[in-house]
Amino acid sequence: MQYPLPIAHLIDAYMKLPGIGEKTATRLAFYTMDMPDQDVDDFAKSLTQVKKDIHQCPICGNITEKDVCDVCSNPNRDQTTIMVVEQPKDLMAFEEMGEYDGLYHVLHGVLSPMDGIGPEEINIKSLITRLQKNDAVKEVILALNSTPEGESTSMYISKLIKPAGIKVTRLAAGLSVGSDIEYANSITLKRAVQGRTAL
Amino acid sequence: MQYPLPIAHLIDAYMKLPGIGEKTATRLAFYTMDMPDQDVDDFAKSLTQVKKDIHQCPICGNITEKDVCDVCSNPNRDQTTIMVVEQPKDLMAFEEMGEYDGLYHVLHGVLSPMDGIGPEEINIKSLITRLQKNDAVKEVILALNSTPEGESTSMYISKLIKPAGIKVTRLAAGLSVGSDIEYANSITLKRAVQGRTAL
Repeated sequence: MQYPLPIAHLIDAYMKLPGIGEKTATRLAFYTMDMPDQDVDDFAKSLTQVKKDIHQCPICGNITEKDVCDVCSNPNRDQTTIMVVEQPKDLMAFEEMGEYDGLYHVLHGVLSPMDGIGPEEINIKSLITRLQKNDAVKEVILALNSTPEGESTSMYISKLIKPAGIKVTRLAAGLSVGSDIEYANSITLKRAVQGRTAL
Repeated sequence: MQYPLPIAHLIDAYMKLPGIGEKTATRLAFYTMDMPDQDVDDFAKSLTQVKKDIHQCPICGNITEKDVCDVCSNPNRDQTTIMVVEQPKDLMAFEEMGEYDGLYHVLHGVLSPMDGIGPEEINIKSLITRLQKNDAVKEVILALNSTPEGESTSMYISKLIKPAGIKVTRLAAGLSVGSDIEYANSITLKRAVQGRTAL
C-alpha cells in the first residue's frame, strides 16, 4: 500500500533536507497533517519568502532583505577594515561575538579546484573591485576556515591584495579555549607553538 | 545582530517541527536558501496540499485524498473482519506486512482520561454505528499498542461490542522475533507464557 499522494510528495520534500532520511521525513509529514492550518500556511509562506526576499548585499555579499545589508549601511562601522569570511553564518558568528566593528566581505565558498570552484565562482572579484574603488581600507582580515581549501583561498587572496599595499592578516591559530593539549591535533599544536605570545 | 526577518521566520517555522531545535532549524533555513527555487516551491506546495487534500475516510477514519479510502472502496477485501488501530501509520504497517486483507477502523488516538481524551474524542462511536449497520462483520481485531492506554481502550471497546455477538480478538503478546529472553520485561514474559502454543 502506498501513502496517499499528497503525503508521499511531502515525504519526498522533507527528504531533500540535509540529515533527514525516509523515517524522519515520514514522521514529519504525519506531524504536519496534525498541525494547525495556520502554522502550516506560515511554514509554506516562509519557505517561499526566504527565496524571494533574501539576496546578496551588492557591496559585501552578506545576505539581506534590504537593498544594502545592515553592516554596509551603518556609517558607524570602522570603514578601514574588511573581514573576509566564507559564509553569512560566519559573519553572524563574528557579529555575535560583538568585538569586531569593521566591514565584511562574504565569499560564499572557498576555492576548490577538485569541485570545479575557481576564483570566478566565489565573490573574489567584487572584493578586489571594492578595494580598488575605496582607498579607505587599510587592513583585510582573512577569517576563513582552517581547512586546506580555506588556507589556499587565503593565500590566493593575499597574493592579489598585498601588491596594493594593504595590510593582510589572518586569524590566530592555536588551542581552543578550554581544550586539552592531549586532544589537540599536531598541526594545531605546531601553529600554537609558532604563534606563542609573551606573558 | 539579528538574522534578516525572512530567515528568522523560517527558523521559527522549522522549530515547530518535532525534534528540531534552534541549531538544526538554523542549518535547515540556510540550506533552504541555497536550494533550487523549484524544490522550495514544491516543498511549500506539498505542505499546503497535505492540509487541503488529505482528510479522514468517512467509513473507517483512514487518511485519504479520495472520497472513500482505498481499503474501504476495494470490494475484494474480506468484509467480515475489521481491525481497529490507533493511527493511520499502524494501518500502513499492517498493509506493508501484506497478510491481512480485511477492513480497518482507525481510532486516531486512545482513551486517556488524564489528557482529557474520552470516548467522544476518538473514532469509537463511528465504529459502533458501522457494526450496527453492517451485520456482515464477524470479527473485530483490536490491534492497539501494548500501553496502559491501549489496553484500557481495548477493554472499553470489547465491552461495547461483545453483547452484539461479534467475536473480539486482540493481537498475540509475547517475545519479539529475534529478541533475547533476558532483555524482555516481565509483563512480556508473563504474556508469552500465558499465550504459549503447542509445537
